[in-house]
Formats: sequence, structure tokens, C-alpha cells
Amino acid sequence: MRRRALEPKLDYTSAFAPSTVANLGPGFDLLGCAVEGRGDTVAAKPMEVSASSTNLEDRVLIERIEGDLGRLTLESKSNCAGIAAIETLRLMERECGPLAKGAGVSLDLEKGLPLGSGLGSSAASAAAAAMATNVLFGSPLPKAKLVEAGIVSEAAVSGYHADNIAPAVLGGFILVKSTEPLVLQQLDCPSDLWFVVVTPVFEAPTKKMRAVLPKEVSMQLHIENTGACGELLLGIVQGDIQSIGHGLNSDTIIEPTRAPLIPGFSAVKGAAIDAGALGCTISGAGPTAVAVVGSKEDGRAVLSAMKEAFKSEGSLEIQYADVVKLCKEGAKTV
Amino acid sequence: MRRRALEPKLDYTSAFAPSTVANLGPGFDLLGCAVEGRGDTVAAKPMEVSASSTNLEDRVLIERIEGDLGRLTLESKSNCAGIAAIETLRLMERECGPLAKGAGVSLDLEKGLPLGSGLGSSAASAAAAAMATNVLFGSPLPKAKLVEAGIVSEAAVSGYHADNIAPAVLGGFILVKSTEPLVLQQLDCPSDLWFVVVTPVFEAPTKKMRAVLPKEVSMQLHIENTGACGELLLGIVQGDIQSIGHGLNSDTIIEPTRAPLIPGFSAVKGAAIDAGALGCTISGAGPTAVAVVGSKEDGRAVLSAMKEAFKSEGSLEIQYADVVKLCKEGAKTV
Repeated sequence: MRRRALEPKLDYTSAFAPSTVANLGPGFDLLGCAVEGRGDTVAAKPMEVSASSTNLEDRVLIERIEGDLGRLTLESKSNCAGIAAIETLRLMERECGPLAKGAGVSLDLEKGLPLGSGLGSSAASAAAAAMATNVLFGSPLPKAKLVEAGIVSEAAVSGYHADNIAPAVLGGFILVKSTEPLVLQQLDCPSDLWFVVVTPVFEAPTKKMRAVLPKEVSMQLHIENTGACGELLLGIVQGDIQSIGHGLNSDTIIEPTRAPLIPGFSAVKGAAIDAGALGCTISGAGPTAVAVVGSKEDGRAVLSAMKEAFKSEGSLEIQYADVVKLCKEGAKTV
Repeated sequence: MRRRALEPKLDYTSAFAPSTVANLGPGFDLLGCAVEGRGDTVAAKPMEVSASSTNLEDRVLIERIEGDLGRLTLESKSNCAGIAAIETLRLMERECGPLAKGAGVSLDLEKGLPLGSGLGSSAASAAAAAMATNVLFGSPLPKAKLVEAGIVSEAAVSGYHADNIAPAVLGGFILVKSTEPLVLQQLDCPSDLWFVVVTPVFEAPTKKMRAVLPKEVSMQLHIENTGACGELLLGIVQGDIQSIGHGLNSDTIIEPTRAPLIPGFSAVKGAAIDAGALGCTISGAGPTAVAVVGSKEDGRAVLSAMKEAFKSEGSLEIQYADVVKLCKEGAKTV
């Protein structure tokens, strides 16, 4: 039986993907989670392309981007949403059969997240674009597969890593157990867990923040950090929020290297802990600071202490601050 | 109210402590577990010492050691059982009040474990001695406290580490979340888990096996091994024995350095996996090889494959081999 060529099944769809907190303390490059609050939204519509076109890049058009202050390119093969959409089409062809001649997709990206904030801005765009593209074609791919499309996009933007894109697509906490082959595990946290995210107006590009990391770590630090990561992981799956906080605070490799590059971060962390946070670290590559608390009420006090410390000790204005829950759903249609 | 001085409450007691498998793959220096089968036994009796003696070392006598082929010293302050007993008395004094004048303890150590085998031989002696000493005095210390006495003993013998002594005392899997301060977490594994332990006749002293370890590890290996350790830990608490096995197999730092020093180890590991083991690594500092299986039946086939490979590929005789369950109880009176 000949398979029917894949073609758009809807006239329009729109997908939202949440912000993500990756490099969680000692879980650098391994552990990330999705949080509620802001995120990116991608609308997708069918687009007619030349029937002779064999290039997947030509089948994706980015029509419009809003909220990026004009900083992102509309060229689909160079934009994280565009790359994710192209890779989603590639996966569809590989897994489900050929695309119909002339079938393409036009995207409209609405950035809800500031760029270079450490909240997984590129991953949110990629996850929303992959989701919207897949849904437009009738969801031929399972949701988990979309992570692979997103990883190609992340690799093009800031190096191969899955700890933002996997939770942006799937939601919850995601442990990257191995990258080659890619093995992910979604972790359920049975306790009520809230995150305080505070993003100052300060640029901390991922590439620069990665460049400062040590190439080697001492065996002693390796062992300590592995123990801290173990504490954090067990805290998550066992719902022990004290252990989550303590594990987050116990990174002795990444945070000490990056913190000095974010004005006021040490004071912000101290203020968060003093105000009752269980733990506090840098979100992603920064400059966002993220603290963990056990309730929304605790979060409010921690939020204002962190904002105040960024202002007074770091002389930085705040562009985004919120107390948000773990987002268990990940990317979704809206 | 004046506290009564501590004195022996029994005429005789005897404690057994199990063998332990530490340095569990990517859980180097962090993760160990107790297994059933052989272990060490320490009998304790009250002993009268000079009433003017203020030195705790004088209060512990090692009367006899059996099964060590004459290799261990009877001098209590230089013997791992003796040191653990002395430290147990020190903890009693610190936590519970002064020892009665003239009160001492005489120990009789029966080694069930070969020395330098990687099965926590020194930890088993220390755990049994601490347990017997505490029980003799009416158990003034909680069992968990005895780990501290054992750590002092381990530090004197092979460097400060808790991953053998903690499971030898407490049983089960123990994660050392931090050493300063000492924070341990006992992990319950809800699945049926069996260990195949095979000890060849070959000396692999802990100090020598530690000396070959790299002082630094690359960031890449650090991240990979932390992910593997996470997989192992989650496998344990979630009872996912496939993940336990895969995690054990995924150490890219310690095992590659030590395996070449144990004749035939690579072949033994390969034979174990081929025969159906879920994972296989070096127990402690070796030379014991340990494999994980899901049932006693699976264990028998793996056992004979491992023995055969040690003989044919390593030209080593076998001194101990067994298929054993996780020991959940740890040290106990017998």
C-alpha cells in the first residue's frame, strides 16, 4: 500500500512553549525544568511552495517576529524557530513518509521571553515551532520526537545540549542521562514547588558564559558535585524540597565561575536565602537568578529581596520577575 | 542529676557486619551497598583495666584474630576493628557521659572476608567492632552514630571515605551526599536485585588503586559521569533494574583507569554481560568484579561465566564467588 503524502490538515494552529531553567546547580548540561509564566508562541499556517522544490528549507517561511526588538533574522534556516520547523519536516519525512509536493508552512513567532536571559528563550521558540508544525500536519510525530528537532536548532544557536529543549517540549524536570544516544528521563516531583525567577537587564550570552568554564575539574570537585547532583535528583523524585534546595546550593564547579560575571549575583543569592529560599542559583547561562521555595507566599518575599539586591548591589534594572510553578505540560497548542 | 558512668551491661556479645560493594560505577566515593553472604564477626567481652587509665586506647584489647592468615596486628590502635571500638567509646563519652573507671572491652575478630578484596573487608571489621562495643555497653549510641566511629577507622586504613562503612553499619544502598559535614541518605530499592561477586586471587591494595586515578577529569567526562550516576540513583529508588545496570556500566572515569590493573577484568565484564548481567563493574578498589542481575537463576549463569573468564583470560584462581541479595539490615548482633 502506498503511503499518502503528508500535507497540512489545518488552516491554522498556534503553539506555546514555556520558559525553562537549565544547568540546575550541580546538574549542569544534565538537568532542566519547565516553569509556568512567560514563554514563546508560534502560529503556523499552510503555505504553497513551488512543486519542484526539493529543499526542506524552502518549505518554511518566517513571516513575522514580534517581541525581539528586531534582533532575530527572518531567514528560516538561521532562526531557531525556523530550524526547528525544518527539522520537524525532516523527521516527518523520515518517520512517516514523503511530504506532499508544494506543501510548506508559514510561521509567525511571538517572543514572550527576553533573548539571552537564561530562561531558554531559543528553546521556547524551537519547541513552539516544532509543535505548531507537527500539529499543522495532523501530528504525525509523537511529542517526544519533537525534542530531536529542537536539539538541532539548539546546536545551531549555542551548541548541542538538551537540557532546555527537552523540558520546553515535554514539561517537568528532565534528566539527560546520555546525549549519544540521547536518553532522557522525565522526573515527577510529588511536592509543591515554586520558582522565583528574576532577570536583570544585563547581557550574558551563552557562548561567552560557556567559554569561562574550566576545561578540567579536580577529582575532588567532581565527586562533591556528583553527590550534590544525586541529592538534587533524589530530592525531586522523592518530593524532598529541602534536598532540592540544598542540592541546588551545592554546585562548586559552574556557579563559582559564572557568578562573578553577573553583577550582584552573590548578593542576590544571599538575599534569597535570607528571605527564606531553600536554594538559589543561576538559571541557564544567566543572568537570570532562580530560587526555589515551597509556596507562592514564600516566593513573594524572596522575589522582592532578590530584585532589591540586583538593584542595590549589582546596579541592574529588572526586566522580568515572577513566582511560578513547575510547568508539567511543556509545549501545547493554544 | 548526675549521670551514671557507662559500664558494660552484658557478659558477652557478638556482632556481624556484611561485605559491601562501594565505588559503584559512576558513584565513586559516593555510593555503596551492603550484600548478603560473607562478612566479619566481632565478639566482645568486658575487660578490667587499670582504674587510673585515662587513655581510651588502653580500654580496648584485641585478644584474637582468625582468618587473616596472620596479617593483621593485634595492637588495637592500629587495627581497624580496634580503632572502631576505641572511637565508639570516644563517641559514648562525648554523647552519653563518662565511662566507668576500669571499664574496658576485649575483642575477638573473625575475618570472613579476604583482605584487599574490594568487598569492604576493613569496613566490615570496623562495623562489627563498633556494633559489638556499643551493644556490650547497653547500646547507648544509636546505630547510625556508629558510622562516625567506622569512618575514623577507615581513614586510618585507606583514607577518609564513607561508602563502605556506612552500608556495612546501616545496610542497603547509601549515598554519601556530602562528607563535610557528613550527610548520608539510605536508598530503598523496591525491586528484587541480586549481585554476583567474584573475587580472584590477586592483590589490589586500595592505596595503589587510588594512586592510579586521574587528579583531574575533563568537563565532558564529569558531565557524562554525573548523568550516569543520576541514572543509577534513580534506577535504585525507582526499582528500575535496567537503569541500575546501564548506570553501572557507564562509568567513564574510574573503571577505565583501574580495569587494566586487574588481569582479565575486561573479559570478565564482557562475559558477565554476554551471560545476561544487566551491568558489571569493579567492586571497591578491586580485584572483585561485581555484576547485577534480576534473579538468582540469572546470577548462576553469570557467576560461572565470570569465573571462567578470570581463569582463562586473567590466569587467576578464584577465592570467593557468590550470588547474593542486597543486605538491608547492615551490622547486627548474632
